[in-house]
Amino acid sequence: MDILPSGDTARLARRISLALGEAPADLLITGCRLVNVLSGEIHDANVAVADGVVLGFGDYEAREVVDAGGRYLCPGFLDGHIHIESTLMSPPEFARAVAPHGTCAVVCDPHEIANVMGPAGIEYMLAASRNLPLTFFVMVSSCVPATHMETSGAAITPDDIRRMLAADYPYAARVLGLAEVMNYPGVLARAPGMLAKIAAAGGRVVDGHAPLLTGRRLNAYIVAGPASDHECTRLDEAREKLRKGMHIMVREGSTEQNLAELVPLVTPENAWRFSLVSDDRDPVDIKKNGHMNELVRRAMAHGIAPVTAVAMASINTARYFRLHGRGAVAPGYRADLVLVDDLETFAVSRVWLGGRDVRDLGLDCREVPVPGNTMRPAPVTPETFRIPARPGLVRVIGIVPGQIVTRALTLEPRLSDGLAVADPGRDLAKLAVIERHHASGNVGLGFVQGLGLVSGAIAGTVSHDSHNLIVAGVNDADMAFAAQTLTKVGGGFCVVNNGRILAVVELPVAGLMSAGCLDELKTSLAGLGQAYADVSAPSDTDRHPFMSMSFLSLAVIPELKLTDQGLVDVESFSVVDLFVPESR
Amino acid sequence: MDILPSGDTARLARRISLALGEAPADLLITGCRLVNVLSGEIHDANVAVADGVVLGFGDYEAREVVDAGGRYLCPGFLDGHIHIESTLMSPPEFARAVAPHGTCAVVCDPHEIANVMGPAGIEYMLAASRNLPLTFFVMVSSCVPATHMETSGAAITPDDIRRMLAADYPYAARVLGLAEVMNYPGVLARAPGMLAKIAAAGGRVVDGHAPLLTGRRLNAYIVAGPASDHECTRLDEAREKLRKGMHIMVREGSTEQNLAELVPLVTPENAWRFSLVSDDRDPVDIKKNGHMNELVRRAMAHGIAPVTAVAMASINTARYFRLHGRGAVAPGYRADLVLVDDLETFAVSRVWLGGRDVRDLGLDCREVPVPGNTMRPAPVTPETFRIPARPGLVRVIGIVPGQIVTRALTLEPRLSDGLAVADPGRDLAKLAVIERHHASGNVGLGFVQGLGLVSGAIAGTVSHDSHNLIVAGVNDADMAFAAQTLTKVGGGFCVVNNGRILAVVELPVAGLMSAGCLDELKTSLAGLGQAYADVSAPSDTDRHPFMSMSFLSLAVIPELKLTDQGLVDVESFSVVDLFVPESR
Repeated sequence: MDILPSGDTARLARRISLALGEAPADLLITGCRLVNVLSGEIHDANVAVADGVVLGFGDYEAREVVDAGGRYLCPGFLDGHIHIESTLMSPPEFARAVAPHGTCAVVCDPHEIANVMGPAGIEYMLAASRNLPLTFFVMVSSCVPATHMETSGAAITPDDIRRMLAADYPYAARVLGLAEVMNYPGVLARAPGMLAKIAAAGGRVVDGHAPLLTGRRLNAYIVAGPASDHECTRLDEAREKLRKGMHIMVREGSTEQNLAELVPLVTPENAWRFSLVSDDRDPVDIKKNGHMNELVRRAMAHGIAPVTAVAMASINTARYFRLHGRGAVAPGYRADLVLVDDLETFAVSRVWLGGRDVRDLGLDCREVPVPGNTMRPAPVTPETFRIPARPGLVRVIGIVPGQIVTRALTLEPRLSDGLAVADPGRDLAKLAVIERHHASGNVGLGFVQGLGLVSGAIAGTVSHDSHNLIVAGVNDADMAFAAQTLTKVGGGFCVVNNGRILAVVELPVAGLMSAGCLDELKTSLAGLGQAYADVSAPSDTDRHPFMSMSFLSLAVIPELKLTDQGLVDVESFSVVDLFVPESR
Repeated sequence: MDILPSGDTARLARRISLALGEAPADLLITGCRLVNVLSGEIHDANVAVADGVVLGFGDYEAREVVDAGGRYLCPGFLDGHIHIESTLMSPPEFARAVAPHGTCAVVCDPHEIANVMGPAGIEYMLAASRNLPLTFFVMVSSCVPATHMETSGAAITPDDIRRMLAADYPYAARVLGLAEVMNYPGVLARAPGMLAKIAAAGGRVVDGHAPLLTGRRLNAYIVAGPASDHECTRLDEAREKLRKGMHIMVREGSTEQNLAELVPLVTPENAWRFSLVSDDRDPVDIKKNGHMNELVRRAMAHGIAPVTAVAMASINTARYFRLHGRGAVAPGYRADLVLVDDLETFAVSRVWLGGRDVRDLGLDCREVPVPGNTMRPAPVTPETFRIPARPGLVRVIGIVPGQIVTRALTLEPRLSDGLAVADPGRDLAKLAVIERHHASGNVGLGFVQGLGLVSGAIAGTVSHDSHNLIVAGVNDADMAFAAQTLTKVGGGFCVVNNGRILAVVELPVAGLMSAGCLDELKTSLAGLGQAYADVSAPSDTDRHPFMSMSFLSLAVIPELKLTDQGLVDVESFSVVDLFVPESR
C-alpha cells in the first residue's frame, strides 16, 4: 500500500469511502485490457481512481470517464538505473520529455554532478526534482571521487551517505540507498573507505556494478552488500549473477545495449528478478524513441511476454527498491497509468501520473535554477598547452570508434620550435585535461588519435568521472580560446576555429546539464555537430567526437587515459610519462 | 542481504575474506541439486557457509564437508501465518518440534495470548522465543478484544501497536507489522479504533483476513492497508484478491485446508504472489506430519512445480514480509538450509539453521517459564450453573461436525425442580462460559447439542477469542468441579465425572499452552480423548469435542454462540435471551 503517515486516519477513512463508491471517483477508465503484473495476466477491467490512487476495479461513478476502447492499461514505468546527467537535461526538463512516454519514476545515481559538486550536487538534483509529477528517487553515489589519479570537485564520504539516508534528511522519502558500487576491486581488497560507505548504507538497498566478475570474487562482492547488477553483457555472466541472487538490471541505453544477449535467461519463474534500465540515454535518442516504453517494446520484440516485459519496467523494479504501493494497477497503488494502443507498436496514447492526465500537469519547458558557475579553473592561456619536446616517442591515446576503451599507442611526435605539437596529417590532436574545480592549475597533456580534427579546437566539461575541462585541438591558441569560452558560459561543449566560436552548447548546471529545453538542446547539439564537421576531415564512420572525448579521462577503462594529473596507464593503474625513451 | 549494522566494517571485511576463500569456511555441502528459488531452476552446486551465512557456490576449503550425494538442497521454510497457541506448545517446544522438519522461521500472530494477557502476552511470546535458532517473527495482534460482546483479558490499543513497532522496541527486529485485520466490517464502517490501529502500523506490513469479501467492499478493505489474505476458500475469491494485489497465503492447516481449491490459480508468472501458511496446526498433526515440509510436499502433489512450491514456503514469504537476506540459498543469505532426499517424498534428511546443524543446537525439551497463573474467575460453585426455568423454548447451539459454524436451534427444555437442566437423552448438555480474567463473575449459560456427553463434565480454557473458561456438562456439580480443576492448574482441558478427575491436560501458559514437551502433550491429549470416551455416547463420526467447544464462544462465526456475556446471535450481532416465548 501507499505509505500512510502514522495517525492519518482521516485520509484513510476518505479512501475507504471513495472505494466503497459513496462519493464519485475522480476518474474511471472503462473498457481497458489491464496488464496486471500482479496476477500475471491481461484481463478486462474498469479502473477507478481518486486522490491520486487506484480505488479498484468495478463500476463507479466518476467525474471523468475515459473509454479505453479495448486499449491496454499498464502501470507507469520505472527506470531502475539512470544517470540523468547523461541526458544533458535538468530533472524538470527530463520529466517533461519522458512523462508523456509513460515514465512515472526513475531511480537515479547523480554520480556525475556529485563528482563536480559533492553532496551539494546530489541535493541540487533532489531540490530540482521536488514536486514533479514524475518521481525522482536517488541512490547516493558511492564512488566520488572515482580514482586517486584525478581531481574531482568534491568527495562523498561515509558521513554524507549516513546523513542522506537518515530518516530526518529533508528528502528522506526519495533517497533509497547506495548507488552502484563500481569500485569492486576496492570491495574485494577491503579498502576501509569503501567498506565504510557500504556500512553507512545501514541495510538499505545497495546497487552493484561488477562487469564480468565471477566465481569466488563475485561471491565476495555480493556478501559485501551489492544486490543488483546492470553491467551484464554476457549470458553466462548474467546467469551466474542471477543464481547468486543479484537483481539483474538489463541495460538498454543509447550505446550500451544488453537486452538481446540476456533475453534467453528470462523465464516466467525468474522474471521477477529482472528489471529494464537505461543507465545512459542521450537527449536525441529520447526525443526520437522515448524512454522505458521503447525498452518494453524491444523486450516484447525479443520474445518476452507482454505482461513480463511490462513487469520488468514496473513492479519488479518497485519491489527491488522496496517502493511499496508502486509499480502495479491495483487498489491502493499510486495511480500511475499508461494506456497503450496495442502490444506490438506499444504506442502510448494516454498517461496519468498520480491520477492526473500528463497533459494537464503543466509540464512546460522552463529555465531551471542554476547552482552557480562551477567552472573554476586556474587561468588558461596558450602557454598552458605547451609541450616542450624531449627525446623519444610519445604515448598516444588511440580512439576505438564506438567504444569507450582506447588503445595505448606509441608514436613519433611532430616537433616544431622545440615543442611537441599536433599533426593533423596523422589525425593527431593535442589533448588537455584542465582541473576546473579548485583552480589548482593541474593540467594533464597528451595526444589523441582518431578525432579527425584538422583545425581549431573542441572542448567539453562532460568528461568522466571528474568532469574536468577537456580540450582537443590543432593549435594552442584555439585550445585556450575553447577552454576560456566554456569557462565563461559555465560549461558545455564548443567548437572554435581561428579565434572564432563556431558553436557552443551551454550546460550551465555543473557543466553537465542544460538549463533549458530539449528542443533547444537538440538544435544546439545539431549545430555543434555541424561546426565539428567544419573543423574535421570527412569520415566513413559515424563519429561522436564529444562522446568519445568525454570518456578519454575515464581512468578505470583500458588502456590509456588522460586526467588532470597526467596520462593514466589503466593496466598498471598509475600515472605515466608522456615521453617514452626510444630504446624501449 | 542480511542486514548489516551500520558501521560494522569488521564483520563485512571478514565475510569478504571468507567468500574469497582466504580462510576455511565452516561448512561445504558438495554435490547437491540446489533448488534455486531466485533463478527458478534446480542446478548442481557446492554451497559454502560461514558465520551463519551462505558465502556462495564453488570450491572452498571447509572445516566440515557434507556430501549431499545428489540430494536436493532447499532454503529453510518460513510459515507466513501461524498462531503458535493452536499447537498448544510454547515457542521453544514448537521450535524443537518443527526445526528438524526444515522450518527456519515463522511469522506468528499471538492473537490468543494477547486476548488473555494483552501486550504482556505478546511480550511473553517474544521473550520466550528469544535466541532460538528458529526465528519467531511477530505481527502485532489487531483485534483484541475481538468483539464488544465478550470479556477479554486485556486490549491491544493503537498506542501498544505504535510502541511495539517503534525502532526502539526491545524486540524491534522481530516485530514486522499488524496482524490479520479480522474486523473487516469495522474497517468498512471506518470504526475510529480500527482505523487508528491501521494508522499506527505506519506503513509496515498489515495482514488481511476477509473471507468472501468481494467487489467494491474488497477494494475498500485493500485501500485501507491489508496486503494479504489467508482466508480464500474459493478459486474465484482468490482470483479477485490476487488481481487486486493481495498476497495470497494459501492456508493448509490441520482443519482448514484450501490448497486443493486454490492450486489452479498459481502460474509461473504469478507464483511469487503466493505463500503457503498453516494458520492453525494441532500438536498431534505436527508430530505426525511435520510442518511446512508437508505443505510443500502437498503443493507438489497437487501439481505445482518443485521450485515454485519451495518458493511459496521460502522466498515469497520472506519478500512479502520484507525479510531481506532470508528465503533463498545465495551469497549473503542466512544459512537456513534443508536437504531433502527427493522431490516426491520430500523427506527431510538434514537441516541447518543459521549455518548450524539442527542436531547440534541443543534443542532439548525443557520447562518454559510460566507467566503466572492467568486463571482469575470469580468463585465457582454448582449454583453458578443454575438456570431457573421460564416459560417457553430455549435456544440451543447445534454443533455441525467438523465445522466451526453452529446452528441456532430452538428446543423444548428439560425441566427439573424448577430448573432447566441437561438432557443426555437428546444429547443436550448445559454450557457455561465463565469470565476468567478479572473475577467479574460474568457467566453466560445455555445449552449445546452434539457433544455426546452422557455424564460428568468437560471444561477448557482455549475458547476463542477471549479464552474464557468454557464448561459443558450433564450436572452442575461436575461442571463446577471441572471449572475448579482448571482454575487450580492454570488452565487447560479436563474431563470429570462424579467428582473425580478422569483427565487433565495442563496448559499453564495463559491457559493456552503447555509448559512441557510435545511427547508428553501428545500422551496427555490421548488420555483426555480416552476419558472423554468414558463420559460420552459412542459415535460414528470423528468427534473433536474440545476443539468444537473452543469455537462455541467465537462470536464472529454464525449462527449462535455463547460468551461470558450471554448467547450471541451472530446474524444480528447482539446478545439474545436464552428463552424464547413459545408463540414465536
